[in-house]
Amino acid sequence: MSDCIFCKIVAGDIPANKLFEDDDVVAFHDIRPAAPVHFLVIPKAHVESMLEVRAEHAALMGKIMTVAADLARQQGLEEGYRTIVNTGRVGRQEVYHLHVHILGGPDVLPAMLKH
Amino acid sequence: MSDCIFCKIVAGDIPANKLFEDDDVVAFHDIRPAAPVHFLVIPKAHVESMLEVRAEHAALMGKIMTVAADLARQQGLEEGYRTIVNTGRVGRQEVYHLHVHILGGPDVLPAMLKH
Repeated sequence: MSDCIFCKIVAGDIPANKLFEDDDVVAFHDIRPAAPVHFLVIPKAHVESMLEVRAEHAALMGKIMTVAADLARQQGLEEGYRTIVNTGRVGRQEVYHLHVHILGGPDVLPAMLKH
Repeated sequence: MSDCIFCKIVAGDIPANKLFEDDDVVAFHDIRPAAPVHFLVIPKAHVESMLEVRAEHAALMGKIMTVAADLARQQGLEEGYRTIVNTGRVGRQEVYHLHVHILGGPDVLPAMLKH
């Protein structure tokens, strides 16, 4: 998707503060953090949103969620965090490339009001 | 886990308004809905929280997320919804059996303040 900013991050055409990358997913810090720790995990493939997710995406979604959990540990979120996926208009999705937010740290709850 | 209310729902010892069940997961409507549509997807196995999730849980997490997406479609959430996992103290997790919230409908955003 040539006009998708997350595809551009995947391609390296837009810089991002990456935490992790493999063949399937990329994780990077949110450019506008809403909590002390706020990163995103996205599929490299352009999946628009959860509205597109079908059974054939199970392995990809499993990878995204387990990478999220691993990175949360690496980021020191042993006391907990919140994982959010915004989908579509009602879910106030801002970038139409599926992404999982991980928000943690002492201010995580007030931060939810923005998301 | 004999004292876990979600394990009791899995076992059928506590009633729940179930949307879906297979060998791995159960989905049911939240008993205190925070949005017009508010259901949970949980693993049948007792996984305490995302803090316990490791690479070996990838298939299970993939199943949970794809079932969530399928059920959201079945529940008429074509305009979008929000998917939330609360983890640990900071994430204000209330029941310590991993569960994914799906919240949708026109009032989804005010409802976020409660979750």
